[in-house]
Amino acid sequence: MGEFTALLQIEHGIIQAPMAGGAVTPQLVAAVSQYGGLGSLASGYVQPEKMRQQIRQVKQLTSRPFQVNVFVPEPISETKTEDVSFWTDRLPVIPEAQIIPSEEELWKDYEQKINILQEEEVPALSFTFACPNEQTIHHLKQKGIFLIGTATTKKEALLLEEKGMDAIVLQGSEAGGHRGTFLPSKGDALQGLFCLISDVKSVCHIPLIAAGGITDRTTMKAALALGADAVQIGTRFLASQESAAADVYKKALLQAEGSETAMTRLFSGKKARGIVNQWMEEERRNEDRVLPYPIQHVWTTPMRKAAAAAGNPEQMALWAGQGVSRIHSILTVEEIMHELTQI
Amino acid sequence: MGEFTALLQIEHGIIQAPMAGGAVTPQLVAAVSQYGGLGSLASGYVQPEKMRQQIRQVKQLTSRPFQVNVFVPEPISETKTEDVSFWTDRLPVIPEAQIIPSEEELWKDYEQKINILQEEEVPALSFTFACPNEQTIHHLKQKGIFLIGTATTKKEALLLEEKGMDAIVLQGSEAGGHRGTFLPSKGDALQGLFCLISDVKSVCHIPLIAAGGITDRTTMKAALALGADAVQIGTRFLASQESAAADVYKKALLQAEGSETAMTRLFSGKKARGIVNQWMEEERRNEDRVLPYPIQHVWTTPMRKAAAAAGNPEQMALWAGQGVSRIHSILTVEEIMHELTQI
Repeated sequence: MGEFTALLQIEHGIIQAPMAGGAVTPQLVAAVSQYGGLGSLASGYVQPEKMRQQIRQVKQLTSRPFQVNVFVPEPISETKTEDVSFWTDRLPVIPEAQIIPSEEELWKDYEQKINILQEEEVPALSFTFACPNEQTIHHLKQKGIFLIGTATTKKEALLLEEKGMDAIVLQGSEAGGHRGTFLPSKGDALQGLFCLISDVKSVCHIPLIAAGGITDRTTMKAALALGADAVQIGTRFLASQESAAADVYKKALLQAEGSETAMTRLFSGKKARGIVNQWMEEERRNEDRVLPYPIQHVWTTPMRKAAAAAGNPEQMALWAGQGVSRIHSILTVEEIMHELTQI
Repeated sequence: MGEFTALLQIEHGIIQAPMAGGAVTPQLVAAVSQYGGLGSLASGYVQPEKMRQQIRQVKQLTSRPFQVNVFVPEPISETKTEDVSFWTDRLPVIPEAQIIPSEEELWKDYEQKINILQEEEVPALSFTFACPNEQTIHHLKQKGIFLIGTATTKKEALLLEEKGMDAIVLQGSEAGGHRGTFLPSKGDALQGLFCLISDVKSVCHIPLIAAGGITDRTTMKAALALGADAVQIGTRFLASQESAAADVYKKALLQAEGSETAMTRLFSGKKARGIVNQWMEEERRNEDRVLPYPIQHVWTTPMRKAAAAAGNPEQMALWAGQGVSRIHSILTVEEIMHELTQI
């Protein structure tokens, strides 16, 4: 674990996962960094200037390193008009203006973010859904920013290393939220951490960060024993005092078993793991009609927002990893970091 | 690991997985037991008297403990005539007599096996696909036979413990071959070992055997660190000198990556993990039309046999766990056991 922590100048090889969707606050990020880990802002669904604000808030709260995660835009698949009508009919609420984001807009948003991240001299950046292009990598490295890619297979990890990433998050099939898969795979690309770490360890030479199902000291130690240099933890921090997740969401995390989670594309168009609720059960048979990412996400946003406001977990995306079984109380970041780092 | 090995009077907490389909020979089973592990005959697709013969062969080869695995019959779901026609048209070869096994026949076969296993005084028995009934458990325990159940969720493990099993195999989503899931689950019941072991460890008190993705000393140690009392290893023994797997199958194991495996019901009607081949790719979209287990198995048997005879891996069931990435050579059981148990 020495190399990774030394490179990032952090005390513990523990990254708080950048969970897009509003639960990650500057307070949560700063607290994780303050207790010796690496806090992570999630810029995925945040406007560029809002992201800048959040970065500045973190800086006010801590002088320690933190990172920001960025979604790399991907080509949007073709949207069938009949599928748009299908979901318009099925959803309890639909977007006021039926905006379908264009690839151009997504790229503009991404480039604005990359510029701001350089201006703000963020210590580290992580990327999901693709590898940034060579020019972007070059500029960020010139600024001395530490770059982290996300892989779900050996092939993806090898590509990220070759392109110049400084470290790689290995996302096991246990992980909650969106799959970071970005290369086509002959199989299901749903490797458990057990296999993914040792697969990649045998071919890559940069630090590896294990993600998925890690919630406590025991699982963290097992990931390190398998060859990981650090761990990334999501669900455990989602169920923290500092997390801005809705109360009803936190309550669901305390009650769920890992076996009650499943992969679904119903909320966003991209495969993600969450606690099975009414929307997932009722619409399971319509997975094939789901709109491409991020259009399904835009389409279901009003439903998810209304459900959160009404305290109704049945129509929210309750992203959670399989380690959710082990979460029985809402703790402070201090308590979580203490349990993880005690000897 | 002490308790489990002491109970079974074996040297190492290493079980060779009972892989149905013909690869497991009495020689393989005896070799694993001879080197201090627990060899396992797979009786799933074997006639009762053939099973008795194999048991006697193992006894001739070793005086050490071994076990036999038995499939517990389940209710067969309704078979739609149009789906039978659908597969009759698609399959390159079909069964000569279009026999659909009845539940009654499956139960008769199972009961014959249970009687033989008692007569032969087999040291240990493991069960897959369900928990045997109370009477069977009672009779087997009176004979002093050690009973092992198979679980994929905490709920299943709790039931198996309550019913009197002496130990439980925890099958992670990494595992090759058929899923042992037997209780309905709200989620996908595809928990990675990382999470499954710690979930069950917190509630069960009998020995736990970790299965799925374990191929070597490193992964075995990680499973034990997570709380397992022993490990069960399949794919690594499938790629052994003593395994009777077809050469073309062994070759596929040496070449495949874990990310190139996927779950499918296309071969048997029941979810199982194997290396993706032409049959799995071409028929993926027809998963919904698959006949119930074990009817799809009976229906695809001639195709799989013809493919194996012709050395064609594209129409065989290439069951493999995600640990297949780590298998680069065909070893003897002695070599495998040596790598696993060296200090």
